[in-house]
Amino acid sequence: MFLQSDLYNKDLKKVLSLIHDLTKDRAYLIPIIADYIISSGGKRLRPFLHLAIASILGEITENNIKLAASVELIHTATLLHDDVVDESDLRRGLPTANTKWGNKPSILVGDFLFSLAFQLMSQTGNAKVLECLSQGSSVIAEGEVLQLKSIANLEVNHDDYIRLISAKTAELFAVSSKSAGILHNLPEEELDNLYKIGLYFGIAFQIMDDLLDYFSETKAIGKNIGDDFMEAKVTLPVIIAYERATNEEKQFWQKCFIDNHKTNDDLAKAVILMSKNNVYQACYQVAEEYLNKAKECLNNLAKNLDKTLIYSILDYSITRKN
Amino acid sequence: MFLQSDLYNKDLKKVLSLIHDLTKDRAYLIPIIADYIISSGGKRLRPFLHLAIASILGEITENNIKLAASVELIHTATLLHDDVVDESDLRRGLPTANTKWGNKPSILVGDFLFSLAFQLMSQTGNAKVLECLSQGSSVIAEGEVLQLKSIANLEVNHDDYIRLISAKTAELFAVSSKSAGILHNLPEEELDNLYKIGLYFGIAFQIMDDLLDYFSETKAIGKNIGDDFMEAKVTLPVIIAYERATNEEKQFWQKCFIDNHKTNDDLAKAVILMSKNNVYQACYQVAEEYLNKAKECLNNLAKNLDKTLIYSILDYSITRKN
Repeated sequence: MFLQSDLYNKDLKKVLSLIHDLTKDRAYLIPIIADYIISSGGKRLRPFLHLAIASILGEITENNIKLAASVELIHTATLLHDDVVDESDLRRGLPTANTKWGNKPSILVGDFLFSLAFQLMSQTGNAKVLECLSQGSSVIAEGEVLQLKSIANLEVNHDDYIRLISAKTAELFAVSSKSAGILHNLPEEELDNLYKIGLYFGIAFQIMDDLLDYFSETKAIGKNIGDDFMEAKVTLPVIIAYERATNEEKQFWQKCFIDNHKTNDDLAKAVILMSKNNVYQACYQVAEEYLNKAKECLNNLAKNLDKTLIYSILDYSITRKN
Repeated sequence: MFLQSDLYNKDLKKVLSLIHDLTKDRAYLIPIIADYIISSGGKRLRPFLHLAIASILGEITENNIKLAASVELIHTATLLHDDVVDESDLRRGLPTANTKWGNKPSILVGDFLFSLAFQLMSQTGNAKVLECLSQGSSVIAEGEVLQLKSIANLEVNHDDYIRLISAKTAELFAVSSKSAGILHNLPEEELDNLYKIGLYFGIAFQIMDDLLDYFSETKAIGKNIGDDFMEAKVTLPVIIAYERATNEEKQFWQKCFIDNHKTNDDLAKAVILMSKNNVYQACYQVAEEYLNKAKECLNNLAKNLDKTLIYSILDYSITRKN
């Protein structure tokens, strides 16, 4: 399993140590908040995907460590801003930074980490990497804005949802993967494959994430179960539950998501309705389809590469419990 | 005067039109908020400084338009986040974006504009430009975080203040100016001069900005007078007023800034105390010293350049009324 690999336990440490070194002497709350959020755990999937791809293509270079740190910094900056926007109070089993230090430092430290990501990228001196990652950042930010539109909006359909999570989540996996190929001067077709591996993995990952928000326990997931429900975020489980709902059930979903009127029992009722309509299975199946697409793209990569590690990362998208 | 120059009226239009084109077809609130904040005015000093420097060094190229758009986008993103952090409700005489659409879209559209800035920079393919601007962005963000420490803190002194505004404001002018030199392959010494022209200009500019917050009218400045006072931001006028205060006056400043206890008449009283202690003159003098340092650096630039336009921009830092 990839979490036990040498790459995970050695090279990824260099990435975290680089981030620590770059933030430790900065102004005021920067080292404190950066350290808090970076050391609070998280699976480091984005930098690890980059390193894992790089490792099968050749040696891991200083530039790989920098790019891996960049994508983790972008992810971290996004988390800080997300938690302000979503008014979340729990992440990875700990109070969120906005809960501990307030919204203002979360916004501004997020901006700092984001800038740092670009500074690191630019140190690679590789213009193509920069174009890839900066375009990725725009797509992610656009996805975050688009997500506001999916709140309390039961007209969001399956395709809208895939478009949304492709932008806000999967894009960063896609560019994490592709940028490793750019550093190794792969041809466009291979780069496109790498991009898609990350993209499809990210889509499967986010579908499972949204599913776990209804079918998990706070202790396992490290954040409050039902957060999406309370914020009226229309995710795939809701889209499918609403599609399969009887007229009476439809009224329940409308009351919770459009009228934004929820009682304490409504989350449990939502989960019961989802179970009755086999929503877990349906979502899992969609996630699995994307996982298979990711694996197909991986198969298309040059034959002589040892892809075992990447397969184990890809599988993690749907086997994870938190 | 530079506001009447051809450069201001023609080339700067290309910059605004590029920003418009890059945001108009984006998701949901992006075109609306981007257009609102971009077309609400502002003096475009950062992109204009870049273009003005570029114009005396040679022809204005497509890359100059892109970099000018980049710095304006970084500035705009910062404004969106600043207004959320400061809870401001008025800017350039109009309700702020956070007042009109809420904090969430302001944070996320800010992130998008910031990403777009990096995307544009990376399109120049010039790694040195990217390093300069991305490092500048980190400095700015660090300055914004540092500013949180100056709130309700009367121990902030003159040097702390200059360090703070150098980072949060002057750095962007500095890199706007320097990046024009990088595109023209100037030697390090000249680049350093360009950096300092922007830096010192920016410091003078921000000192006057902080002064106008006490000595202006809402109508002229386009935002609420006394905003800094209400937020207990310790700026140069307060630092000097506090230094020169009698014991009784010191108690007044402590009550307003540390105890955060302010009545309706306190802003007027603050202005009266500043006037009595010649704070306007003292701040103006500091601003003028930085303006002169900027002009010295301009004099150090190659002798054969026509620097008239740049002089008129520099002078604007202390002659402006809004």
